Amino acid sequence: MNREQALECVKTQLTEHRYTHTIGVMETSISLAETYGADVEKAELAAIFHDYAKFRPLEEMKEIILREKMPPMLLEYSPELWHAPVGAFLVEKEVGISDRDVLSAIKFHTSGRADMTLLEKVVYVADYIEPGRRFPGVDEVRDLAKDSLDLALIQAVKNTVIFLLKKNQPVYPETMETYNFLIQTRRKD
Amino acid sequence: MNREQALECVKTQLTEHRYTHTIGVMETSISLAETYGADVEKAELAAIFHDYAKFRPLEEMKEIILREKMPPMLLEYSPELWHAPVGAFLVEKEVGISDRDVLSAIKFHTSGRADMTLLEKVVYVADYIEPGRRFPGVDEVRDLAKDSLDLALIQAVKNTVIFLLKKNQPVYPETMETYNFLIQTRRKD
Repeated sequence: MNREQALECVKTQLTEHRYTHTIGVMETSISLAETYGADVEKAELAAIFHDYAKFRPLEEMKEIILREKMPPMLLEYSPELWHAPVGAFLVEKEVGISDRDVLSAIKFHTSGRADMTLLEKVVYVADYIEPGRRFPGVDEVRDLAKDSLDLALIQAVKNTVIFLLKKNQPVYPETMETYNFLIQTRRKD
Repeated sequence: MNREQALECVKTQLTEHRYTHTIGVMETSISLAETYGADVEKAELAAIFHDYAKFRPLEEMKEIILREKMPPMLLEYSPELWHAPVGAFLVEKEVGISDRDVLSAIKFHTSGRADMTLLEKVVYVADYIEPGRRFPGVDEVRDLAKDSLDLALIQAVKNTVIFLLKKNQPVYPETMETYNFLIQTRRKD
């Protein structure tokens, strides 16, 4: 599947605003992959499809989470988290993408996880800093991403956790594990 | 064991500064226990002994954590966490206190945990707001504690997590579970 086919496919699933965001994530993922030595084609494909399930009805996502035996704990946390693992599932099933690296980059682009792959980090950070993003702290992460993908990722996760705490929202355990793992492994280096 | 005997016992384990802090936690715990209907005598006893192991050598605490099969993950996080579970163990073994409520209030006074008992909450919050404490955010928690022990606890845990994030320190999973549990159960009320 080339870029044009992939974009045409995902466009049917997204609003115009979200499609523009997807283009931004794609371009940023390619650039980060080139900088940090990730597979550029996989980064492009994962970025194009990262929000594939974003506008599926909550009931459909909930049903898939339960039926496919995804962590049921997901349902106790923000529905904003659901489209990532559900997206990875649907992209495989409906689009026919079977590359495990691409699928895991889609699956963990919102929660993160401990010991993320390089490709997962690329898509996570690209989703956070693509040019259309405007929120407090994003420029700091953009600057960090020029020199260190890990430092950019740590800062993005920290911003996300502090944002959730200030809104009295629960923090998904894998998000905290993403942060703890990076902090603890960097200390041991 | 009456108050005087307990204070005499713990005094041998603490610096003067930490003993003064302990008196503050004791008085605050008694007051919170009276306000929120916890057992006042247990609150007093747990508060007196909450920092019993604070000045044990790190090597001794580490050895106890491993030997007594406490969560080995503790060793990957701040040693500041260790004195709480080690203290509960030593207070039972060396002082002879066997009350499970008192021991668990000592054990969880630093990390917290999901589904804390009323007595655990009393000692955790008292440790955070006792009159000798001076740090940003403490007055907000003092004010909250006048009306809601849970809201005071949520704010104290939030402040702790944000403090750790800003210092690039790892966040112990049980600390996050304390916050998530309180946020999620309050939503269901």
